[in-house]
Amino acid sequence: MPLVQIDLPRSVYEQKGAQISTEVHQALIDSLDIPSNDKFQIFRPRELGELVFGTYPDVDRQTLVVLQILMVHHYTVELKREMFRCIVTRLSAIGIRREDIFVGVTENGYEDWYAGRLYGE
Amino acid sequence: MPLVQIDLPRSVYEQKGAQISTEVHQALIDSLDIPSNDKFQIFRPRELGELVFGTYPDVDRQTLVVLQILMVHHYTVELKREMFRCIVTRLSAIGIRREDIFVGVTENGYEDWYAGRLYGE
Amino acid sequence: MPLVQIDLPRSVYEQKGAQISTEVHQALIDSLDIPSNDKFQIFRPRELGELVFGTYPDVDRQTLVVLQILMVHHYTVELKREMFRCIVTRLSAIGIRREDIFVGVTENGYEDWYAGRLYGE
Repeated sequence: MPLVQIDLPRSVYEQKGAQISTEVHQALIDSLDIPSNDKFQIFRPRELGELVFGTYPDVDRQTLVVLQILMVHHYTVELKREMFRCIVTRLSAIGIRREDIFVGVTENGYEDWYAGRLYGE
Repeated sequence: MPLVQIDLPRSVYEQKGAQISTEVHQALIDSLDIPSNDKFQIFRPRELGELVFGTYPDVDRQTLVVLQILMVHHYTVELKREMFRCIVTRLSAIGIRREDIFVGVTENGYEDWYAGRLYGE
Repeated sequence: MPLVQIDLPRSVYEQKGAQISTEVHQALIDSLDIPSNDKFQIFRPRELGELVFGTYPDVDRQTLVVLQILMVHHYTVELKREMFRCIVTRLSAIGIRREDIFVGVTENGYEDWYAGRLYGE
C-alpha cells in the first residue's frame, strides 16, 4: 500500500497528470513488485509560487514535481534506488525533466494502514 | 498531538466536512485517550481526477477519503487497530462507506513537535 | 534535503507567503547548517474551515500555520529545539503569532531521497 502524494505545477498536471499517474504506478510495479490494483495516489496541483526550490545538490532545476511516497518499512536500499530509477526513466520519457523530479520516501509498518478493511481481518 | 490530514473529494467535504472533523476527532479521543482540545486537522478538498485508486486489497471502492495521521511513536498495535475501528465506525455512521476510507499512520517522537510553545518549556 | 510543507490560511499566504518562505529557510540554515541552495518548500493555502484546531497544550491559538518538515534522521534533539526556536523567532518577527505556529518533524534516511539525481551517483 504505497501512498503516493504528488505536488506539481498546475500546468504540468493539466497537460500530463493522467500520464504521470500511469507511469509512476508502473514504476512501482516494476521496482517494488506491488500488485497492479495497489494504486493510491493524491495529486495536488499547485499555483505559481507555491513550489519553492533551490539548486541543491548542484541541479539545474526549472520547476519542481514532488512525489512523497509513504510505504511500509520492507524494501532494501537497492530496491528503493531501483524505484527512483524507474520513476525517473518513465517520467523523463513523457517529458518531465529528471532534474525537476524530487522524491521523498517515508516508511511505516504494516499495522499502520487501513485500506478499506482492517489488515488481517 | 496527532496531526490529521484529510484529502477527500470536494463534494464529500462540502456535504460532510464538519461532521467528518467531529467524528474523526471523537474517534481519536475514544481510542487513543487524547485530550478533547488536542485537535489538529487539515482538510484538503480534491477535484475529480486528483484522487486515484485501485481495488487493493480486493475492496469495492467508489471513491477515496484519505486520512494521514502523524502521531508520536507511543501507541500499541492494538490501540492503532482500535483507532481504525473507531474512525471507520463513526464515518460509516455519517454515510462514508468503509470501503472508501483509507488511513495511513506515520510516527515521530515527542521531540519532533512544536505546538504553540516548546515541549517542556 | 529537508522538505518543508506549509498549510496555512490563504490570507496569511497572500500577505506573507514570500516572507515566510525566506524566514523559514533562513531558520533551517541557522539551526541545521544546511546549504543555502538546499531549499524545498511546498505552500498549500487553505480556505476558511480547512484548518481545524483546539487549544492544546493550553495555547491561545487564533489560527494555524502548519509546517511539516521531512528530513533525514541525523539531527540531535537539541538541534531540533534550536530549529523550532529559530523558526518561531523569525516568523513572529514578521507578524505570525508564535501561538499559531505548529511544526511536526518526520524523519527518513539518506537513501530515501531523489533530488534531481541519485544520491551518490
